[in-house]
Amino acid sequence: MKLLDGKLVSQALKDKLKVQTAVRAAQGKKTPHLAAILIGNNGASETYVGSKVKSCEEVGFKSTLIRLEETISEDDLLFKLNELNEDDDVDGILVQLPLPKHIGEQKIIETILPSKDVDGFHSESVGRMVQGLPAFYSATPYGILLLLEHYQIETKGKHAVVIGRSNIVGRPISIMLSKNEYPGNCTVTVCHSHTPNLKEICLQADIIIAALGRLEFLRADMVKEGAVIVDVGITRVADSSKKSGFAIKGDVAFDEVSTKCSYITPVPGGVGPMTIAALMMNTFKACAAKDN
Amino acid sequence: MKLLDGKLVSQALKDKLKVQTAVRAAQGKKTPHLAAILIGNNGASETYVGSKVKSCEEVGFKSTLIRLEETISEDDLLFKLNELNEDDDVDGILVQLPLPKHIGEQKIIETILPSKDVDGFHSESVGRMVQGLPAFYSATPYGILLLLEHYQIETKGKHAVVIGRSNIVGRPISIMLSKNEYPGNCTVTVCHSHTPNLKEICLQADIIIAALGRLEFLRADMVKEGAVIVDVGITRVADSSKKSGFAIKGDVAFDEVSTKCSYITPVPGGVGPMTIAALMMNTFKACAAKDN
Repeated sequence: MKLLDGKLVSQALKDKLKVQTAVRAAQGKKTPHLAAILIGNNGASETYVGSKVKSCEEVGFKSTLIRLEETISEDDLLFKLNELNEDDDVDGILVQLPLPKHIGEQKIIETILPSKDVDGFHSESVGRMVQGLPAFYSATPYGILLLLEHYQIETKGKHAVVIGRSNIVGRPISIMLSKNEYPGNCTVTVCHSHTPNLKEICLQADIIIAALGRLEFLRADMVKEGAVIVDVGITRVADSSKKSGFAIKGDVAFDEVSTKCSYITPVPGGVGPMTIAALMMNTFKACAAKDN
Repeated sequence: MKLLDGKLVSQALKDKLKVQTAVRAAQGKKTPHLAAILIGNNGASETYVGSKVKSCEEVGFKSTLIRLEETISEDDLLFKLNELNEDDDVDGILVQLPLPKHIGEQKIIETILPSKDVDGFHSESVGRMVQGLPAFYSATPYGILLLLEHYQIETKGKHAVVIGRSNIVGRPISIMLSKNEYPGNCTVTVCHSHTPNLKEICLQADIIIAALGRLEFLRADMVKEGAVIVDVGITRVADSSKKSGFAIKGDVAFDEVSTKCSYITPVPGGVGPMTIAALMMNTFKACAAKDN
């Protein structure tokens, strides 16, 4: 068994982006600029946005963090977004989710210009991805592709089973993996809460993407010898041995599955860091797309 | 074995739309209006557009057929489309494909306002469908759903195997069938030219959507007893016994598969007529959406 080490690959990608950004600067080209909007004081959101801003610094991007009050009106937020849309220096915009209940999430996402939609959540981004047009792939599934690519995992003709059909992970990764490109060209099966014979289907899988959000759901008896396992789950579990008081666990029972599979992502340190690397890649692309 | 009779169901849906359209008229509401653009003199395109215009007449919709020369420039076509976008009386716009080679198909499709995109080919329509937002489902996959719905085919928890991953049929129907709605909630496997064990996978299917465009590809030995078979293929085969000199055949070897399955679409008379019914449904919806 070999680890699909998201921390390591994420760092390698960021190192590469740092060089590419320096090359751009040397050529007198624009520095990529990510604007992030953070609303209220959600602890997890603070952490996520903090990592994104820190990653921008690491790779030499410009970043702008806009903190807004929990009580901001939808109109004021839309106004702010339109300012960022019109600001030529801003290449990528992200609004950290979730939003306060009085703000329509979909409306906010759809307001971001597709050309600055580095999170890939706009319906036009999703549609373009599905249709095979140039598009921002949303960060988590894109991060998974980058991880498979780094380890040169063979995907063509392989059977990938995706557990979960969320808009954020399961659905897009199932589409990406069945596209005619690399990583891709998998036969892909999408499973979900109404799949009666999940174990039987998982046992056929060469690649399993576990993205259902249920603690240690995937057990060793559901996995074929030599399969590739990608764990997208993140569940906090109380753990008094940790300083924080909790440990992060995934959708895969790592200890038992890891003895059977060929590759597996750890949690934490697998898909999580890749999401941020993918966001940096998208921001770089958004900037570079303006060169011509 | 029972036929999934697209001709019959299409007629039933059109009869219902005719009543609904008459009810709208009686209430003083707007009559649905479809504008179709036909470029050049392609025989098949003439036939398709002709059927669409005829269907509009049948259900009491207004239709406008705009014939343009093969030599029209892209700019002139874009200008025409923008006129239709701005014309409040036009509810739905379709541009019959394929287009002459000097015109960018994607650019044309993306110019149609998403709110008038009754063919459902705009990337925003596709993205909204994927994300579960209100959207125009593109006509062929939507027609398949309407057909399954009419015959009250159970889909929840069933394993649907989709052969083909085209933007027009395979990809969207695979997504629709795995959504959390009816018809849907299937476990869905997408197969394509790189799937090594297609027969084995098809033998697991409760529902097979054959949409690869290869004459009589699906044989009886690939089908589980009692499966539901939807044939999206259309191939012209020379047939001197026909007045036209050709017969239309599908992707399914009908004679042998029909002895094994529970339901099957004939070709012709299966998915084909449903595509037009679906287009009429979308046009009606586009019009009704303006009521408020």
